[in-house]
Amino acid sequence: MYLQDIPSIQDIISAETRIRSHVHRTPVFSSTKLNEIAGCRMFFKTENLQRGGSFKIRGAMNSVTIASKSWIKDGVTTHSSGNHAQAIAIAAKTMKIPAYIVMPHNSPKVKVNAVRSYGAKIIFCEPTQEAREATLEQVQKETKAYFIPPYDSYDVIAGQATMMKELIEDTDHLEVMIAPIGGGGLASGTLLATDYFAKNIVVYGAEPKEADDAYRSLLSGEIEAVNNVNTIADGLRTSLGKLTFPIIKDKVKEIILVSEQDIIESMKLIYQYLKLVVEPSAAVPLAAVLNKKGQLKDKKVGLVLCGGNVDLEKLPFH
Amino acid sequence: MYLQDIPSIQDIISAETRIRSHVHRTPVFSSTKLNEIAGCRMFFKTENLQRGGSFKIRGAMNSVTIASKSWIKDGVTTHSSGNHAQAIAIAAKTMKIPAYIVMPHNSPKVKVNAVRSYGAKIIFCEPTQEAREATLEQVQKETKAYFIPPYDSYDVIAGQATMMKELIEDTDHLEVMIAPIGGGGLASGTLLATDYFAKNIVVYGAEPKEADDAYRSLLSGEIEAVNNVNTIADGLRTSLGKLTFPIIKDKVKEIILVSEQDIIESMKLIYQYLKLVVEPSAAVPLAAVLNKKGQLKDKKVGLVLCGGNVDLEKLPFH
Repeated sequence: MYLQDIPSIQDIISAETRIRSHVHRTPVFSSTKLNEIAGCRMFFKTENLQRGGSFKIRGAMNSVTIASKSWIKDGVTTHSSGNHAQAIAIAAKTMKIPAYIVMPHNSPKVKVNAVRSYGAKIIFCEPTQEAREATLEQVQKETKAYFIPPYDSYDVIAGQATMMKELIEDTDHLEVMIAPIGGGGLASGTLLATDYFAKNIVVYGAEPKEADDAYRSLLSGEIEAVNNVNTIADGLRTSLGKLTFPIIKDKVKEIILVSEQDIIESMKLIYQYLKLVVEPSAAVPLAAVLNKKGQLKDKKVGLVLCGGNVDLEKLPFH
Repeated sequence: MYLQDIPSIQDIISAETRIRSHVHRTPVFSSTKLNEIAGCRMFFKTENLQRGGSFKIRGAMNSVTIASKSWIKDGVTTHSSGNHAQAIAIAAKTMKIPAYIVMPHNSPKVKVNAVRSYGAKIIFCEPTQEAREATLEQVQKETKAYFIPPYDSYDVIAGQATMMKELIEDTDHLEVMIAPIGGGGLASGTLLATDYFAKNIVVYGAEPKEADDAYRSLLSGEIEAVNNVNTIADGLRTSLGKLTFPIIKDKVKEIILVSEQDIIESMKLIYQYLKLVVEPSAAVPLAAVLNKKGQLKDKKVGLVLCGGNVDLEKLPFH
């Protein structure tokens, strides 16, 4: 990690300049019909259309471009079963360095194939946190590859913050912003960017009831673990990190919890009215808006569709 | 119908000016991964993101705006179970006139509700061609509403042609274009626009094997009926019209037939790589490209994603 403190306004501006040619400036979608349903004016930042199908490429690209060349000369590594793995694979391919991705052997085949298609080397491990960390350590020792964590890194947070900077620039006077909370990389980046570039925007976090660790962490004042992984929103089954938690604790207005049924309903609304393929995690902010209808009436609300990597055989529409 | 002959270049330019503020200029999507799979460079015109979820609004808006005010003062009418019904309902709402839509009583509920949500009046009939026409005639008699056909009208064809005009303007030197063929409104509009604005583009039609009426019509030289309606591509279960057939016969390079399995596979590729929700008909052009891989190698190919109105409960991904 290059940045040693909470990213400053200049760190985020620099991140944007650094990664600009490697990420899409994703468009902002709206739907009159959805606005009627929600009773407010919504602006969806379509990170599902981002390279690799999620916002994760922003943090990954910032991490590899901010690092000294000597740090990454032997490649990069991480452990992930999801979108971060793809992002690191793409970032490494862009920099023409090797990528070593530790993946649980039960990772969805579609994700394994995606990572492989970018030329990354995959090292399988048992599907436990300990096995992931032990395998990663082994890989680092053998390859000297540079570790890029999925969220708990200021380099990553500064990269994710560029999403919100773009959304602020591409919309007119947003009043509210809703970001989903998993490990907290996207949420803390969103909070920082809002603080620096549009202080008047009120930022809510959104979390599945079935993975309400951030909600409980705010109540207790310390990082609480995810108790179970029953939520369909697979991108949000992570606890907060040491670096992301303080930013979220300090700046978020409130964390809105949503039920599994609400997530599925919102996902369906996005498919039906925005005609966009999103993964369940990306529907959590809309579910939060629909839960908060009373308070958000007629407001201009930003939402981030964080990703679109979903197993098409397992879509929850019945 | 106002236009009494095949739309001229000026008719299409005028159509565009007339409807511009009422339709979206839909973006053009690409995917590096999909290009690798297809072996050519593809540019997808995203009419699934169009108002009402399909290109049909173009022809509908051109029809109501080109008509004399006295023709439409008592409203508009049509028969349709699909995208044309929604388009007419939206066009009527825009013009603040009534819409009377004759729909078979077995039409999907989601489509009936969509039409109703725009304030159109729905008249149900038996699901046969005769019942539809008889009911329409009755409605016309009673309401004096102006009939806007789904495809067999020069006003409609000129409207649909604006899709291809935009695609030509928003891409660089397309070499090939693939349009799906149902009743032929979109296909003949595409052929005319290409003729007028980019003569060097070779235009193919694409059709399900299970509804190969256009293919057979070209062979026999007369309009052949659809033999069965077994195709999943519900938007393409129609025979050509008296006005669309001669244009297609005169100008299309060839009609490419695709299997049901190819349609489903292509639909899946679009969901997976473009992250777009499309209806089966919209996947027919990609299926045609994949069938013609050899001939299209490295070419710049335009494809139209004609619509996104699909029953999410019945997606064919298993």
